Amino acid sequence: MKLATLRNGHPDGQLIVVSRNLTRAADASDIALNLQQALEQWADAERALRQRFEQLEAGATSSFEFEPSCCMAPLPRAYQWCDGSAFLHHGRLLEKAFKHPPRENFETIPLLYQGGSDDFLGARDEVPMPDEAHGIDFEGEFVAITGRVPMGCDAKSALKHVLLLGQANDWSLRTLVPREMNTGFGFFQSKPSTSFAPVVVTPDELGPAWQDGRMHLDLHVDWNREWFGHPNGDAMHFHFGELIAHAARTRRLGAGTIVGSGTVSNDRPGVGSACIAEKRVIEIIEQGKPRTSFMKFGDTVRMEARSKEGHAPFGAIEQRVVQA
Amino acid sequence: MKLATLRNGHPDGQLIVVSRNLTRAADASDIALNLQQALEQWADAERALRQRFEQLEAGATSSFEFEPSCCMAPLPRAYQWCDGSAFLHHGRLLEKAFKHPPRENFETIPLLYQGGSDDFLGARDEVPMPDEAHGIDFEGEFVAITGRVPMGCDAKSALKHVLLLGQANDWSLRTLVPREMNTGFGFFQSKPSTSFAPVVVTPDELGPAWQDGRMHLDLHVDWNREWFGHPNGDAMHFHFGELIAHAARTRRLGAGTIVGSGTVSNDRPGVGSACIAEKRVIEIIEQGKPRTSFMKFGDTVRMEARSKEGHAPFGAIEQRVVQA
Repeated sequence: MKLATLRNGHPDGQLIVVSRNLTRAADASDIALNLQQALEQWADAERALRQRFEQLEAGATSSFEFEPSCCMAPLPRAYQWCDGSAFLHHGRLLEKAFKHPPRENFETIPLLYQGGSDDFLGARDEVPMPDEAHGIDFEGEFVAITGRVPMGCDAKSALKHVLLLGQANDWSLRTLVPREMNTGFGFFQSKPSTSFAPVVVTPDELGPAWQDGRMHLDLHVDWNREWFGHPNGDAMHFHFGELIAHAARTRRLGAGTIVGSGTVSNDRPGVGSACIAEKRVIEIIEQGKPRTSFMKFGDTVRMEARSKEGHAPFGAIEQRVVQA
Repeated sequence: MKLATLRNGHPDGQLIVVSRNLTRAADASDIALNLQQALEQWADAERALRQRFEQLEAGATSSFEFEPSCCMAPLPRAYQWCDGSAFLHHGRLLEKAFKHPPRENFETIPLLYQGGSDDFLGARDEVPMPDEAHGIDFEGEFVAITGRVPMGCDAKSALKHVLLLGQANDWSLRTLVPREMNTGFGFFQSKPSTSFAPVVVTPDELGPAWQDGRMHLDLHVDWNREWFGHPNGDAMHFHFGELIAHAARTRRLGAGTIVGSGTVSNDRPGVGSACIAEKRVIEIIEQGKPRTSFMKFGDTVRMEARSKEGHAPFGAIEQRVVQA
């Protein structure tokens, strides 16, 4: 089943089901007004939403053309957005380039930061940024959305709380990062509003591409219409269950918690990167200094996860950076 | 005007108005179902809520006894909880005890971390913690709740977006803090669910105690029924407008954003502290090592902000720590 959120003037938007091929959609706001509400009463809502989805697939319910530019983020705001850094290749490159000592527990304790979740951007929304000098960068990621998770949940059980899967662009302001990391208080100004692909799907929609708590999909990233990378989600060191268990160690998680993988990163040759920062550290390592600049106002980015068969289950993020 | 949230089985609870002396309450869910909804349509909701409050004060509306144990946090969950560390005396003590070099921009750039906001605790809720070895500690704070704040808002304008004021206990797990701060990713497991005093008030309710964006109130803290401290909110170095402006530098803030002062801390002799960590660093400085242990299961904490006249505008936080 595939779900999205139509812009309707309300901060939480209107819930719709979307056809498997992302061409048609049907209203679902009679089942749950919005996605957050559906997630809170998932046992009931899921059954009714699946029925609507099957009717849509069969052409047996009134439907309309699915238009991503009319969508908000699937959860336009959330009560919890915790974003990991689970692709260790990315962290290792940063360490190497900046000559940081290896992080203790790097391979055993996930890195997770608390992200701002009150104002997400839709897949086609313009991205307002105050200043090019902040080092504007994209970060292609996979995300899982959970139901309620009890405190102390283990990694295996945590996977059972994953209700939906999706894709995000974790916008980052790189020149603001070092000061904030040095305080120990984590990212704040350096992580403006995150963007999401238009569609979220139940795990069964991915078939074998959802395996071991990881999305085995290539994340194709184009910057200004040119190929930038297509790393695969299979290289995630900590799977989503491990990230959720880490987040729930000392507290419960509410329904609608979004957990992010961190920027997708592979050590396979020729697959590129899912963020500019990573390309720059590779340049530092290989050429002594970074050659690629960060984004300018007017720049675009496109991100689309694709299966081996070429399907794009979540639709594409296609955004332009503009001056705030 | 004073507001609170009654437990009614829904995650957002039921909005009520509370009498000035915190003895009576009246339903307000016909005006807005819950506080989040009221904050989203504040211009309309405020007028109707103030009218209900005046009727309650005049005994001219049906009312019931106000019982804090029936209350959830005023916002039982929020889309944004950003917590500062605006009392610099606290930071200076930590630096001195742990021989950290002085922080750059300590007096000019506020420290703010992104807090988890999906599962707050009410003022009388038990506080489930997984392990005493985590160094269970309270942190008495003041909070401001805002309406929508535009990106790039300056500190003075930011104060105009403060709609409500309140009081929080920012529970902390001290032995988990150093590892998380060292990663640069900020607090996560070390900051479990935050608790809030039962009542929030519009700024006018504080009279001269709301001044220069600071709450000039003593925050009385008792640990296991014994006095622990009563530092005053007037010593806040960065006022709430400055914290909000910092938070809104690279993004908009949604209605219902909660901004925290950080643990209240004074350099006045004899006023004690609002968290155990601060008492311990004073012991390290004065006696070479900490003498006070962190909390045990079964321990209680009481926090109540009081005006010069002895009024407690927000009611008291009275909680017991239990094993999760």
